Amino acid sequence: MKSYRKELWFEVPTRRAFLNITPQVESCLKESGVREGLVLVNAMHITASVFINDNESGLHEDYQKWLERLAPFDASAKTYAHNRTGEDNADAHLKRQVMGREVVVAITKGQLDFGPWEQIFYGEFDGRRPKRVLVKVIGE
Amino acid sequence: MKSYRKELWFEVPTRRAFLNITPQVESCLKESGVREGLVLVNAMHITASVFINDNESGLHEDYQKWLERLAPFDASAKTYAHNRTGEDNADAHLKRQVMGREVVVAITKGQLDFGPWEQIFYGEFDGRRPKRVLVKVIGE
Amino acid sequence: MKSYRKELWFEVPTRRAFLNITPQVESCLKESGVREGLVLVNAMHITASVFINDNESGLHEDYQKWLERLAPFDASAKTYAHNRTGEDNADAHLKRQVMGREVVVAITKGQLDFGPWEQIFYGEFDGRRPKRVLVKVIGE
Repeated sequence: MKSYRKELWFEVPTRRAFLNITPQVESCLKESGVREGLVLVNAMHITASVFINDNESGLHEDYQKWLERLAPFDASAKTYAHNRTGEDNADAHLKRQVMGREVVVAITKGQLDFGPWEQIFYGEFDGRRPKRVLVKVIGE
Repeated sequence: MKSYRKELWFEVPTRRAFLNITPQVESCLKESGVREGLVLVNAMHITASVFINDNESGLHEDYQKWLERLAPFDASAKTYAHNRTGEDNADAHLKRQVMGREVVVAITKGQLDFGPWEQIFYGEFDGRRPKRVLVKVIGE
Repeated sequence: MKSYRKELWFEVPTRRAFLNITPQVESCLKESGVREGLVLVNAMHITASVFINDNESGLHEDYQKWLERLAPFDASAKTYAHNRTGEDNADAHLKRQVMGREVVVAITKGQLDFGPWEQIFYGEFDGRRPKRVLVKVIGE
């Protein structure tokens, strides 16, 4: 069994953004030399997500609006008990649960085994600082 | 390490439905010959889910109603920017994030290592066309 | 390839609670002897979650309040069709979908390969009975 590990670093200049990280994950896969196996891609921070969906800017707008409706930003410690710690990012911890922490993708013949529109995104909900995504490959 | 891959095809005649695909995944597992390992089951399309829950029709009604409340269908491009592309399925991309893209299940002694009520479902949110689920098994 | 399996049992005295199970998962990892691989940690019950987030009590309050808003408890079979079965836990099946069934964590040099604040939680939404979490490790 082979294994491979890489950290991808991102510093998003805004509070919230979605970044298409498919090319970086494909590079990792090539470097790993694994032909058959699984790749785990996960946010290493708890106010960020890794998810798979469409690379379509209108949809990304819809996600932002929708997440804001489900889990609104509010810096106040009256609204969110977490913000009593001095943080203002409780909403980011909630948004990340909707979008998920991680994806696991099949590797077949050395490629990400994807349907026609699948792309991997880093979802940042509390940016403006350096944060990491872990790529772990296992297989043969 | 063994690996195994199969695509399951579905064409749901309605926009939305939940299909119990546990028997198909069990067949894949048998075919794979893997006794100890992991199986990844994921929707290959971005308006569909694979999830694990109860095979109870009342609960499935509840899920449908609840998802409609959290992410209502609306074909209008005023409500959802994604629908400016000519699609009417923005809500399906949102619903799929709540229910998830994939499940990873342990394989123990050649069986899906499940609790008493766990069953695997394909969740279709934009049907009426052929769509796929990927089953990838790795182990020994 | 090595594989390892363990069930963790919990009996939460209240309907809802979050338990930090990171130490138990770390013990499993040590017992497994795996240095490079993946660990799957999943609820074996369909009204419970395993998720990764912050070990901060204010945030846990926020999650409880937020989940109650997204998927309110209501024992009535008028509100939730699932409760026609005699159960009163339909809301727990919904809450669990938001928080997720499982996590997959990378194992690197014999450790959970975590970012600075990542901790694994068992999320109980219908407690007061013995329930299980499965830990499955594969790797070398």
